[in-house]
Amino acid sequence: MSLQAPLTSLYETATENRVGGHAVNRLAAAQSLLADDLRAIDEAIRCLAGSGPRPATDAALHLNGGGGKRVRPIAVLLSAACFGPISQVARDLAAVAELIHLATLLHDDVLDDADERRGRETSRRVWGNAVSVLSGDLLLTHALGETQRVAPGETLSDLIATLQQLVSGEVVQLRGRRSLDVTEAIYFQIVEDKTASLFSWATRAGARVGGGDSEQIAALGRYGKHLGVAFQLVDDALDYVGEAAAIGKGLHADLMQGKLTLPLTIAVRKRPKAMGDVLLARNGDEAAALRVVGAVAETGACDEVRKRAQHETGEAMAALDTIPAGVARDLLAAVAADLVKRLM
Amino acid sequence: MSLQAPLTSLYETATENRVGGHAVNRLAAAQSLLADDLRAIDEAIRCLAGSGPRPATDAALHLNGGGGKRVRPIAVLLSAACFGPISQVARDLAAVAELIHLATLLHDDVLDDADERRGRETSRRVWGNAVSVLSGDLLLTHALGETQRVAPGETLSDLIATLQQLVSGEVVQLRGRRSLDVTEAIYFQIVEDKTASLFSWATRAGARVGGGDSEQIAALGRYGKHLGVAFQLVDDALDYVGEAAAIGKGLHADLMQGKLTLPLTIAVRKRPKAMGDVLLARNGDEAAALRVVGAVAETGACDEVRKRAQHETGEAMAALDTIPAGVARDLLAAVAADLVKRLM
Repeated sequence: MSLQAPLTSLYETATENRVGGHAVNRLAAAQSLLADDLRAIDEAIRCLAGSGPRPATDAALHLNGGGGKRVRPIAVLLSAACFGPISQVARDLAAVAELIHLATLLHDDVLDDADERRGRETSRRVWGNAVSVLSGDLLLTHALGETQRVAPGETLSDLIATLQQLVSGEVVQLRGRRSLDVTEAIYFQIVEDKTASLFSWATRAGARVGGGDSEQIAALGRYGKHLGVAFQLVDDALDYVGEAAAIGKGLHADLMQGKLTLPLTIAVRKRPKAMGDVLLARNGDEAAALRVVGAVAETGACDEVRKRAQHETGEAMAALDTIPAGVARDLLAAVAADLVKRLM
Repeated sequence: MSLQAPLTSLYETATENRVGGHAVNRLAAAQSLLADDLRAIDEAIRCLAGSGPRPATDAALHLNGGGGKRVRPIAVLLSAACFGPISQVARDLAAVAELIHLATLLHDDVLDDADERRGRETSRRVWGNAVSVLSGDLLLTHALGETQRVAPGETLSDLIATLQQLVSGEVVQLRGRRSLDVTEAIYFQIVEDKTASLFSWATRAGARVGGGDSEQIAALGRYGKHLGVAFQLVDDALDYVGEAAAIGKGLHADLMQGKLTLPLTIAVRKRPKAMGDVLLARNGDEAAALRVVGAVAETGACDEVRKRAQHETGEAMAALDTIPAGVARDLLAAVAADLVKRLM
């Protein structure tokens, strides 16, 4: 169906999608509407991740096989769909967005000494750090090669600038884990650089190849940036309130790795003595970790994070004002609105 | 001075350059003739390596501060100089070639658990593996950003394809270290992919921005490829016959890391029993390592490697046939000819 069709048909489709008796959320509705595109993109991702020498490709395919919500590809597709039918180039760039994401995960797991991701062993646990580093490097070059092939020029140069920003964010985050000197301002800078930058590229790339004008490309870029910040805020809060199975990397992983995310920063601001337990938790003291989790709960830090996330999704939706009305725009708004519901 | 000037003035300049009473070789002559360009390039490399957040920049600047022969930048400059005065774009791309090289070294040292590089501690020893991985990522994105800025289009797409090849070579090398199943054919494939590809990009990029036609660009690309293979052959042989101080990473480092380079492959072919000692050496047995080094010497493996390197430099020089005569072309030939002398 066309994503420029009237909204009614979307809801008809969406309400038909019920999982375990519950109406699925609208991200699932988007996944359902885009099912054919997403299948093609999955195939493209597998093809690119599997292209090159083993065991780097094994490591990439293992990570990719763990699933994932494909939020970044969906962001590319819906942004393109705001302006017309989804083209092959948009699908190719959707695959690129996921490849970049997978590349950063492969390097992240090495930086974090992480053992679990998406509910299964990390690639670095199976193949070792060296293979994971090279596998990430390989995916990165494939993503660049694919962008060069289908959208050289502005979309490629935008991607390169995005990668610079993304890596800078990773470095500042790593530095903060060592010094434990992360203010809220630094936290938001890290989130914008390391997470929101790729979302923002995804929506700009989609809008650009979909045929948006420069104002609309910038507007969707703002949407992507705010969506990305909200996404990371929710993800960071889930480390404290979620169920380990739901996030697939073990609860409190951030805390044990010394990542000063917003829930922790707020809790420590409200109860400075908790910092002692944060330090102990970073060194593997599980009792201290539980006390920190208690402090996060008692200070209402996660409520504050949810409010910030709501503010960001509000900004994301506001950025859609200049985008032509239609199912694609409505779905973008719905994806943003539903994001925060994961915290309720 | 112009590099299209007659050759006589080159030799006048070169013979003026004496270090410790010995006439310097012609790589040094090239360094001397290109001194102003290389100074500007050094400054550009420092600027790019230092751009971004610490400690990633510290790690990059530390590695860069260890020196290095700047062979890849020289390859860019001389290739450009074959066709006219050296432009700013050629200088910028010369810096890019070195940045890519530095990025691979940062990741290599993580893969190798290397402690020493260019006679000083590796960055990963000082700042840890995580910083080194991100520092390499950052340099890579800077190199891409700089190429995008000064030479988008063919030189950028050529770089992206080169990076894919380079990383593939690293993966195959890593796989070989685990399986110890490296034939000579696989060895040459690794060398072409991981080392020669960047040399070949450097000479093509120089020729392209210098104004060579497509045949000349391809010819200089072949020169660069053969030069790169010869360069790696010499480097690998020096691990067995060189002085540790001269190569700055400790003698027999390749052997202790289980890298089956050509000297070893030849020695094992001629004396299959040596494989037992190779396995022991990989596990840290120094007595076994010394026996392997003995086997390499007795089988004349390094002589054979030198002959192969001479063959490669011969091919490199032959590739210069269609390049306009002048000092730049003569220096390219001289750089190739002098390379093998390191093994004499």
